[in-house]
Amino acid sequence: MRILILGGDGYLGWPTALHLSDRGHDVAIGDNFARRQYDHEMGVESLVPIEPLHTRTRVWHDLTGRIIDTFVVDLTDAPATYAMVEGFRPDTIIHFAEQRAAPYSMIDRKHAVYTQTNNIVGTLNLMYAVGEVDRDIHIVKLGTMGEYGQPNIDIEEGWLEVEHKGRKDRVLYPKKPGSFYHLSKVHDSHNLEFGCRIWGMRVTDLNQGVVYGQQTDQTVRDARLATRFDYDAIFGTVLNRFVVQAVLGQPLTVYGEGGQTRGVIDIRDTVECIRLASERPAARGEFRVFNQMTESMSVAEIAKVISSAYPQPVEIDYLDNPRVEAGKHYYNVVHSGLMDLGLEPHRLSDTLITSLFAIAERHKHRADLAALRPTVDWRRTASTPRAGHPGTAQGPE
Amino acid sequence: MRILILGGDGYLGWPTALHLSDRGHDVAIGDNFARRQYDHEMGVESLVPIEPLHTRTRVWHDLTGRIIDTFVVDLTDAPATYAMVEGFRPDTIIHFAEQRAAPYSMIDRKHAVYTQTNNIVGTLNLMYAVGEVDRDIHIVKLGTMGEYGQPNIDIEEGWLEVEHKGRKDRVLYPKKPGSFYHLSKVHDSHNLEFGCRIWGMRVTDLNQGVVYGQQTDQTVRDARLATRFDYDAIFGTVLNRFVVQAVLGQPLTVYGEGGQTRGVIDIRDTVECIRLASERPAARGEFRVFNQMTESMSVAEIAKVISSAYPQPVEIDYLDNPRVEAGKHYYNVVHSGLMDLGLEPHRLSDTLITSLFAIAERHKHRADLAALRPTVDWRRTASTPRAGHPGTAQGPE
Repeated sequence: MRILILGGDGYLGWPTALHLSDRGHDVAIGDNFARRQYDHEMGVESLVPIEPLHTRTRVWHDLTGRIIDTFVVDLTDAPATYAMVEGFRPDTIIHFAEQRAAPYSMIDRKHAVYTQTNNIVGTLNLMYAVGEVDRDIHIVKLGTMGEYGQPNIDIEEGWLEVEHKGRKDRVLYPKKPGSFYHLSKVHDSHNLEFGCRIWGMRVTDLNQGVVYGQQTDQTVRDARLATRFDYDAIFGTVLNRFVVQAVLGQPLTVYGEGGQTRGVIDIRDTVECIRLASERPAARGEFRVFNQMTESMSVAEIAKVISSAYPQPVEIDYLDNPRVEAGKHYYNVVHSGLMDLGLEPHRLSDTLITSLFAIAERHKHRADLAALRPTVDWRRTASTPRAGHPGTAQGPE
Repeated sequence: MRILILGGDGYLGWPTALHLSDRGHDVAIGDNFARRQYDHEMGVESLVPIEPLHTRTRVWHDLTGRIIDTFVVDLTDAPATYAMVEGFRPDTIIHFAEQRAAPYSMIDRKHAVYTQTNNIVGTLNLMYAVGEVDRDIHIVKLGTMGEYGQPNIDIEEGWLEVEHKGRKDRVLYPKKPGSFYHLSKVHDSHNLEFGCRIWGMRVTDLNQGVVYGQQTDQTVRDARLATRFDYDAIFGTVLNRFVVQAVLGQPLTVYGEGGQTRGVIDIRDTVECIRLASERPAARGEFRVFNQMTESMSVAEIAKVISSAYPQPVEIDYLDNPRVEAGKHYYNVVHSGLMDLGLEPHRLSDTLITSLFAIAERHKHRADLAALRPTVDWRRTASTPRAGHPGTAQGPE
């Protein structure tokens, strides 16, 4: 298949590109390098050094003979987006190309507006490009489990069968997201579902859990193929951040009592889920939703898993939760759709954690301790996120 | 109360301003005159001539001695929005200031992106202004019944009690809107509900039905106080458009078989609903939703009502529906919230229709027949909306 990966220079986009290229698909990447800009803005860096995209694709070509085309495109630039879709003519578009950090979206008004505009307009432009060029192109869109919030009923896969006053309907699962970022993904999902209705588009919406891990079968072949390892309080996902804190001898920072529960998934399962969804496209007019996660764990449980696995003693710091969310809640997620397509999940294991400790140990001299502390407060309208840096963060332009 | 009416120069914003001023409230208007620009862009005009805002407010002052302040502000301009909220210090903000036509949003990509960006960013900026200036300011936000779509269960007022696999929750009512415009309002509602959770905002979301009528107790006092009467296929709401078609001896243009059902409301009830919602604000942290409509009618029924009331014979043209929606569907709406606050609804009556015929008769020489025909096709990614005008519509900048 011809597969275009938008956001293919990012934490998950890059390993996905390699995984699909390795499986024999013709892969191209679209990216505007916004993710690298956020690092400059926040004054942080991936713990593991990463190469520029042109080096990454060259190394992959040298190792495997396989070519990954690249398009330097910002999806908010509609003509460039159309030209990319028209030029590469993909069968499938994997859409990672969004601002993806909840705390980043909650820094202040500017970052909230940027996040929603960037994500919504980019996705609308992509929808129109597909609507005009070829409506059979399958869009695989990355969403997040955080869209659902903390409902007191089971979380189904995107749709809910309801019975109300003796009548029945199948409705979009009602969502109550927890940040302007999560909201942007809910907005995208509504827009895409509408595209399926009016234009007969094929869409798979993947509500992904918190991803952990940093290596895949492809990225380990050469250090220059490494993907990002974010550990900071803005972009670092919780499990990866705890690993770095343990290795640095810092307390694990649990927000609140840690009873809030997350769906989680191994990075190797992420890339495999995307392959499975791509190779078995949604039908014409179908808005198909999968919950892309393999296990549920509370934040406190994740902290315990990391502290037990680490050979040295590890402290746990219970901070005031900067987010607004329930500390204890019901959480039961249906996530059978991708298993039905053939996913064989990796469970979080000591082996994986030990290998993450080794990665963090190797690069711990690159860590900035100040970046580990949460600085963005959901209850305020403006926070100063660049801990350890003088002055105020400059927003995206 | 001090009440700021955003979009106060529009079809409903202006009569609302007069109604609230008449009731003794201190009223100010914020507007960027975007609605008047759309007329220029589409090459159409209100059937009833309307005065510029500065004339309107001067006439109102001359007649009543009451002052209505005006702020020329585009809500996508955050500093200007903050300054307006800080400067007027309202108790209540009525938010009409959005692009509000479904066909306009469906013209092409540019208009879809404009509609969503304009509406979402404007509302986000307003939320942040209230979040910073005074979180007790009550936002009364205009939404639309079209957000709900055509569910096979009863439409409740914004929230739904669900029971699923033996567990219960109260969730945001799941919506399936029918245009990029309707979607923008759903996105706004999600963002606002989040604002209630994180900042304790007070929000009333009014899902309004299709409004008919053109006169209120205040606008009739002087011809220069008249509000718009849109009859074109882009901005004209269905009942008002049918009235003009009847008077012009044109067939009423029913889309499809006309089985699609709409909630409708008299313009005099609209302004009263907004008064009631303003004077009885939502509680701190409450996201309160009312369905602002008084009757349900299918489009075919509306056509029959108009043709029976008109003294001459009236033809009905059943056109291919340019929208994507079910031609026949279940439709039962709960709309008791505003009645509980004291609304005494006007039902659609022959008297009202006869007075609308008289208004249309008086101004029929201003009508453009070409503007009555639907030109925007939901199934296409680009339509040419300016019927009767050479060239392509130029989008908003």
